[in-house]
Amino acid sequence: MIRVLVWNEFYHEKNHEKVREVYPNGIHNAIADFLRCDDITVRTATLDDENCGITKEVLDETDVLIWWGHMKHGEVSSEATELVKQAVLDGMGAVFLHSAHHSKPFRALLGTNCNLTWRESGDSEVLWVTEPAHPITQGIDRFFTLPNEETYGEPFTIPTPDKILFLGSYSGGEAFRSGCLFERGNGKIFYFQPGHETFPTFYDKNVQTVIRNAVRYLAPTCRVHVDCPHVRLISSDKPYVI
Amino acid sequence: MIRVLVWNEFYHEKNHEKVREVYPNGIHNAIADFLRCDDITVRTATLDDENCGITKEVLDETDVLIWWGHMKHGEVSSEATELVKQAVLDGMGAVFLHSAHHSKPFRALLGTNCNLTWRESGDSEVLWVTEPAHPITQGIDRFFTLPNEETYGEPFTIPTPDKILFLGSYSGGEAFRSGCLFERGNGKIFYFQPGHETFPTFYDKNVQTVIRNAVRYLAPTCRVHVDCPHVRLISSDKPYVI
Amino acid sequence: MIRVLVWNEFYHEKNHEKVREVYPNGIHNAIADFLRCDDITVRTATLDDENCGITKEVLDETDVLIWWGHMKHGEVSSEATELVKQAVLDGMGAVFLHSAHHSKPFRALLGTNCNLTWRESGDSEVLWVTEPAHPITQGIDRFFTLPNEETYGEPFTIPTPDKILFLGSYSGGEAFRSGCLFERGNGKIFYFQPGHETFPTFYDKNVQTVIRNAVRYLAPTCRVHVDCPHVRLISSDKPYVI
Amino acid sequence: MIRVLVWNEFYHEKNHEKVREVYPNGIHNAIADFLRCDDITVRTATLDDENCGITKEVLDETDVLIWWGHMKHGEVSSEATELVKQAVLDGMGAVFLHSAHHSKPFRALLGTNCNLTWRESGDSEVLWVTEPAHPITQGIDRFFTLPNEETYGEPFTIPTPDKILFLGSYSGGEAFRSGCLFERGNGKIFYFQPGHETFPTFYDKNVQTVIRNAVRYLAPTCRVHVDCPHVRLISSDKPYVI
Repeated sequence: MIRVLVWNEFYHEKNHEKVREVYPNGIHNAIADFLRCDDITVRTATLDDENCGITKEVLDETDVLIWWGHMKHGEVSSEATELVKQAVLDGMGAVFLHSAHHSKPFRALLGTNCNLTWRESGDSEVLWVTEPAHPITQGIDRFFTLPNEETYGEPFTIPTPDKILFLGSYSGGEAFRSGCLFERGNGKIFYFQPGHETFPTFYDKNVQTVIRNAVRYLAPTCRVHVDCPHVRLISSDKPYVI
Repeated sequence: MIRVLVWNEFYHEKNHEKVREVYPNGIHNAIADFLRCDDITVRTATLDDENCGITKEVLDETDVLIWWGHMKHGEVSSEATELVKQAVLDGMGAVFLHSAHHSKPFRALLGTNCNLTWRESGDSEVLWVTEPAHPITQGIDRFFTLPNEETYGEPFTIPTPDKILFLGSYSGGEAFRSGCLFERGNGKIFYFQPGHETFPTFYDKNVQTVIRNAVRYLAPTCRVHVDCPHVRLISSDKPYVI
Repeated sequence: MIRVLVWNEFYHEKNHEKVREVYPNGIHNAIADFLRCDDITVRTATLDDENCGITKEVLDETDVLIWWGHMKHGEVSSEATELVKQAVLDGMGAVFLHSAHHSKPFRALLGTNCNLTWRESGDSEVLWVTEPAHPITQGIDRFFTLPNEETYGEPFTIPTPDKILFLGSYSGGEAFRSGCLFERGNGKIFYFQPGHETFPTFYDKNVQTVIRNAVRYLAPTCRVHVDCPHVRLISSDKPYVI
Repeated sequence: MIRVLVWNEFYHEKNHEKVREVYPNGIHNAIADFLRCDDITVRTATLDDENCGITKEVLDETDVLIWWGHMKHGEVSSEATELVKQAVLDGMGAVFLHSAHHSKPFRALLGTNCNLTWRESGDSEVLWVTEPAHPITQGIDRFFTLPNEETYGEPFTIPTPDKILFLGSYSGGEAFRSGCLFERGNGKIFYFQPGHETFPTFYDKNVQTVIRNAVRYLAPTCRVHVDCPHVRLISSDKPYVI
């Protein structure tokens, strides 16, 4: 059983009528609803929870964290950011969706500013599969189209991804590395571009397939904390680590 | 002084009226014409030359090889392919243009089939800079547009590039990793998508800037052949290599 | 059930008394013997078989190929090399052991010469785990020691591996990237340094654990041949691929 | 002219007699002394300086920053850490020496904990060149030996380096990725293992050659700040960035 925690800042849905209409129970619940299945259990957390819902205990019981944030990145505490970072380094999977490219945990894990170019025009986006045999792209055809998305463009200031799974192209002409895999420590990280709050992206079957695949791919087979051991000379009769 | 060899199969220009009109002296000479300058000397070679113009002597005097081919990949000999491969592994730079993704030297160096998806529609292509501080993208704005190019699409079956410098998007909706850097052995390799034979791509100032920048970036600072030495125990008084 | 094919050139064992004493049934059978288990079936092939035992039919029924060769790399045909390469690009896993760094399939897949520095001194080798949470290193402590191995040293002229799993250090002072992962096309490739024919390396429990882990990690979840499709404009009512 | 800033926490040299004997003017001045030459100017800064000597003005005039720290990482402010990180992302080169693997700027740029295994035994270290044609390894033979260094071992919890230039092996048996290149944003980063404070490592001619080469290789050709621009539809008559 894979244990997922969906984190959402849950601000737009409570403050913007247009967003509430699309996601009346919040983006986190929209994601939780399609994820729950025989091998996946889902909990949610939001910025309003104590410690924004991020504690060591919660993360210890999370195999894959999904993160959506936009306007309130700055209100996520340094402590919560560090907890997420350490959990990923030990092996927890993490999916960062859309504007979470600017979230504190994503930036802390990647080490760059994760800036990009943006346009709020409601262009359509075509998502092209670059790795047709990868577990995350299974069930997706050569491409799929979202009728409306926020446009993201290059340069996207991330370190070179370990693998690019999707390229996005927009009706206005931009192209973007829309699905990127990174490994940091023992954890796998997937960034996925779609998910603007004013569009029903998370009800799209292809988007749901990609996120469900990602959850299964990112779930760790083991979780190992690597520290900084003081050691002796190797020998057969004494432990190596002091 | 950087010594460039431009290789062209030189078939379309002699057999298709439409191509001859665009490149009356051949694509190789169109490239040579804009490259020649104070710090770059250029020679050309074509499939019609003896050994298709590729000999060890010629490559020993080449800092950067530029390769254009399309219909006649199969007529480049295994010997010429191996000579190019070994020269790159020792440090020679190599630029592969457009349909040279399927050339024998490119495939031999990358180890994959380098297949891609294609459409001959004359779409416009927007080329987006993903690395604005890289030497190869200097002098290029955030993007530039080619009014007509052949459309190339994903999946492009290359090993993960060391760095992606350009993404291309086409008016019909495709996106493509249009500028890719690889290092193999001591040599640097740049693949650049534009350059269909029926369009005046090589007269475009931005395309010329990219290729000129690439020549300067790929030119080796040294050329080193690494073989497979039989060695002794390290010591201060005997040579290590037997 | 994972279907493994162990390929061995099977020359030393028939021609050198010292090697026959260590591997009386051949290295291939020593590997097959420890691999066979509830979820792994094993077949073997050698250079003496027709087409050196490598046909499209055999590879179509192989999930992971294990390759050992040394003196007779040149006798593996170009056809067999190409069949192995294409099977890997479609998704078959491949483990290359020890002197198989110079085998034709490994070189064809990586695109470099795969040269290295070597010393036949029977040094001990310590193998250090660099990725303690990776599936291939599970069951291995921080390091393990082989009392005797052939010494391999840098430079090892491979493309930058996607991940390094083991560093080896030898009693004479050399260090080496002894366990390297590559992805080419849809297939995963693991190079593992140990396995000199005059030493009982393949009876070592840690070596067996690593190879067994590798088989399970490299086995494909799907096998997909990616070719070079001619396509139309994307639309909802016509197939994309012509 | 390349402008270098050598930063040293400068604690051991003032508090430990043994270290003062080796570096009476501080490690920073030992490094500055061998670096100064026709094309390199050097300034130094230490923890005792105001803002630990790190201000935006100073970094704006620095092409390559060299960092040595050990006991006092925690006293480098978050502001100074962020200034260094941003300067690197814009293009400044950075060399992190020895125990600076745990410095705040290095960890912030890489996103991992940068833990490693360590032993303070005074082992000798052999440094093996893995990339003999790289600008940073020029002037170095196949290997060089330091008679005494602190032993660092794997796992070293860094993201996969863009390139490994040196492997280190120690007389006690450990192996380590001793010279690693990373690119983050527009800046290049080099981690180099040698440099324990109780040993005269920075007087070693090979170590000096490597650091001097690194300074020249890491110096940026341009410095570009990439932010997060709001843009319009591309068109020929309006600026793209709003």
